[in-house]
Amino acid sequence: MRDQIEELSALLARFPGVGPRQARRFAYYLLATNQGERAKLAALITSIADNVRQCKDCYRFAATDNEGRCNYCADASRDDSMLMVLEKDQDLLAVERAGTYRGRYFVLGGVLTLSGKGVIRERELMKAIDMRIVRGLKEIVLALSATSEGEHTADRVSELILPYRDRLHISTLGRGLSTGSELEYADAATLAGALQNRKES
Amino acid sequence: MRDQIEELSALLARFPGVGPRQARRFAYYLLATNQGERAKLAALITSIADNVRQCKDCYRFAATDNEGRCNYCADASRDDSMLMVLEKDQDLLAVERAGTYRGRYFVLGGVLTLSGKGVIRERELMKAIDMRIVRGLKEIVLALSATSEGEHTADRVSELILPYRDRLHISTLGRGLSTGSELEYADAATLAGALQNRKES
Amino acid sequence: MRDQIEELSALLARFPGVGPRQARRFAYYLLATNQGERAKLAALITSIADNVRQCKDCYRFAATDNEGRCNYCADASRDDSMLMVLEKDQDLLAVERAGTYRGRYFVLGGVLTLSGKGVIRERELMKAIDMRIVRGLKEIVLALSATSEGEHTADRVSELILPYRDRLHISTLGRGLSTGSELEYADAATLAGALQNRKES
Amino acid sequence: MRDQIEELSALLARFPGVGPRQARRFAYYLLATNQGERAKLAALITSIADNVRQCKDCYRFAATDNEGRCNYCADASRDDSMLMVLEKDQDLLAVERAGTYRGRYFVLGGVLTLSGKGVIRERELMKAIDMRIVRGLKEIVLALSATSEGEHTADRVSELILPYRDRLHISTLGRGLSTGSELEYADAATLAGALQNRKES
Repeated sequence: MRDQIEELSALLARFPGVGPRQARRFAYYLLATNQGERAKLAALITSIADNVRQCKDCYRFAATDNEGRCNYCADASRDDSMLMVLEKDQDLLAVERAGTYRGRYFVLGGVLTLSGKGVIRERELMKAIDMRIVRGLKEIVLALSATSEGEHTADRVSELILPYRDRLHISTLGRGLSTGSELEYADAATLAGALQNRKES
Repeated sequence: MRDQIEELSALLARFPGVGPRQARRFAYYLLATNQGERAKLAALITSIADNVRQCKDCYRFAATDNEGRCNYCADASRDDSMLMVLEKDQDLLAVERAGTYRGRYFVLGGVLTLSGKGVIRERELMKAIDMRIVRGLKEIVLALSATSEGEHTADRVSELILPYRDRLHISTLGRGLSTGSELEYADAATLAGALQNRKES
Repeated sequence: MRDQIEELSALLARFPGVGPRQARRFAYYLLATNQGERAKLAALITSIADNVRQCKDCYRFAATDNEGRCNYCADASRDDSMLMVLEKDQDLLAVERAGTYRGRYFVLGGVLTLSGKGVIRERELMKAIDMRIVRGLKEIVLALSATSEGEHTADRVSELILPYRDRLHISTLGRGLSTGSELEYADAATLAGALQNRKES
Repeated sequence: MRDQIEELSALLARFPGVGPRQARRFAYYLLATNQGERAKLAALITSIADNVRQCKDCYRFAATDNEGRCNYCADASRDDSMLMVLEKDQDLLAVERAGTYRGRYFVLGGVLTLSGKGVIRERELMKAIDMRIVRGLKEIVLALSATSEGEHTADRVSELILPYRDRLHISTLGRGLSTGSELEYADAATLAGALQNRKES
C-alpha cells in the first residue's frame, strides 16, 4: 500500500539529519533492494539492542563480557590513573583512532545546551569516579568539543567534581591549530593555545 | 557486539547519499531507540516489498488492486489520450502534487548516463505503449529532468518510439524560468524557452 | 600608513557581496600590484561614469551615440513591436547572450521588495512606452526573475501599465524547467508551466 | 563605452577570489556610485603604495617611521628574544588581535605549494635572523597554517635555519582543538596535540 511507503518514510525521517524527501528516497531504495539484504537489515535492527549493551563502567554501547564490561574497560593493560570524560560514543572512537590515549573512559551520553536542554549521566559519573579512585585514578580529562555547548557541559562537570579537586587533577583538552586551521581565520583562544602549546621542533 | 554496530552501519551506509559517519550516527540512533519503534521499523522493512507491488501498467511501487494496478492506472476518469514517461516514482508524485496532469504514467525506473551506465524499462515501455494505443493514446510526454542525463535518456526513448511517430504526438516538457530562477544566471536554453513560452497576462 | 590600508579596505567592503576580510585581501592585493595596473584601475574608476552614460531610451549603462542611445536602442534593424522590461543591466546582457530576442529593452533599475523597499523607474517607463507606441509597439514582455521580489515587481509594473491594456499585449516569461531542474524537486508552478509549454519533438 | 565596463570588469576580476560575474557587479556598483566616493577610491588605489611601505625588519606593509620600521618593529618594549615567522600580513594581524604574543615578527610573503609553486623571502629571513641574534634572539616560532602548504613551507624554513639550531630554539605552533572543533570529526594529529597539551583546569 501507498500508506506503507509513507509509514516507512515517516520512521526513516526520524533518523538524525534526515528530512522527509531523503527518507522517501531511503524507502524507495529499500523497496528496490533484494529480499536478503532487507531481511538482514531488519534482523540487525531488531536484535541490535539485545546484543549490544551499555558497558557498566564507561556506558558506551558495545559488546560486553560476562561482567558487563566493554573491551577497553576490561583491558587490564590500560592506565587506571586517567579517566577521559566524553560526550558520546563516536567521540570515544575518534580518540581511540588517534591512538595516543591509553587511559579509561566515561561517556556522558549528551551535552547540556545553553538553553538548559540536554541530559548527561551525572550520578553515573560520580559513581564511576568513586570506583576509579579505588583503582588508582589520578586525573580526569574533560574531553568535550570546543563549542559553546561543549564548554557549557565541561563547566557543569567541573562543578560536579569539585569535591574531588583536592585528590585529583582535572584537565581539559589543549587548544591550538586543528588540522586545516588557517592562521588568518583563527580566533584568539585558538591562537593563544597554539602559542602557549608551541613545540620545539 | 561491536561487530554488530559496524555490520548495521555498513548496511545503512548503502542508503542513497549516506556516508559511513552518518551511517554510524543512524546505528547509534537505533541503539538508543525504544524496542517498539525498532520492531515496527524492522517489520516494515521486512514486509514492504510484500505489500507494495509494482503497478503492472505504470511500474511504480504502490498498493495495487486485484488486477495489479495502482490507483492512477485503475482510475477510469483519467485521460487515456496522454502518457507521461518519467524517470522515477518520486517524479510521478511531484507531478501529481502539481495537480495539473490528468493523463496516464509510465516510470522508466532510471536514467541512462552519458558514460553508458543505467538501465531503463525499454521493453516494458513498448508493451505499455501498444496497450495504451488500443485505449486511445494520442500523445507521449517525455517528462525527464532538464539535466544532461535526463536529456540523454529522452534521446534514447525518442529513438525507441520512432516507429510510433506517425500515429502519436511526442512532446517534451517546456523550458522556462523555474521558481527561483534569476534572469542574470539563466542560460540560453532556459531564456529561449521562457521567451517562446511567454504568457499573455 | 596603517590607516590607509584600513581606509581602502573600508571602501572596498562596500562592493556588493564583499565582507571586511575579503576587502582587506583586496587591499593587500592592490598593495602588491604593480604601479601600472593600479594607475589603470584608478583611471577607469575615475572616468567610468564620464564615458559610460545611461542610454536615454532603455536606461542601461553603456557607450552612447551622439543622440544618447546605446547600440541596441540605436539599431534600426531591431523589432519595434516588442519592449522587454527587465530589472537590471546584467539581465539584459543575459538575454542578449541567449540570442533569441530582437526587440527593444527597458531597464527598471531595481526591484520592489515585499517589505516595501526598492525603487524602479516608473515615470521613465511610462514615457518610454508612450514613445514606443508611436514607433509601433504591440507587446510588452515583463521579464522579471521567477522570485517573490521579481513577481512583486511584475505586479506593480502590470498595475502601472493598466491604461495601455486595450492597445498592447502584456506578457510574462514562461515558466518551465530551467537547465539543471530535476522533476523531483520542481514545484507546482514550474511543473504546470513545463506541462503547458510542452513542445512537440 | 561598453568596452570600458568590460575593461574595468577585467581588472576587478583579478582581485583574489573574484569571478567574472562578481567583477561585473563591482563595475556596475562603481558606475552607480557617486563621483566623490569613486574619486576617493581611485586616489587611495593610486597612492596606497606610496604611503604604505614594507617594514624593513618584518616586511609587512604598513606605515613606517623615519628608519623604515613599522610600529611593532619600532616598539622598544617588545620581546627581542622571540621571532615569529608567518605567511602573510593578515596572519600577523590575527596574532596581534589575539593579544598574547609580544615578540618580533617576520612575514614570508607567501607559501610554497606541494607542486613547487610559490616564493618566500628566504634571503631576507636569513638577514633578519642574523640581525635579531645580535639583539638577543633566542627562539624562532614557525607560525604557519596547519594545512599541507603551511607544513610544506614550515619544512622548507626549518631546512633554511638548520645552521642556527645550536644557538636558537625552533618551535612550531601547538596542535589542539580550534574554537568550534568537534571531537567526533577531529583527526589524529589534532587529538594527539589536544591530549598532549591538556591543561589543568
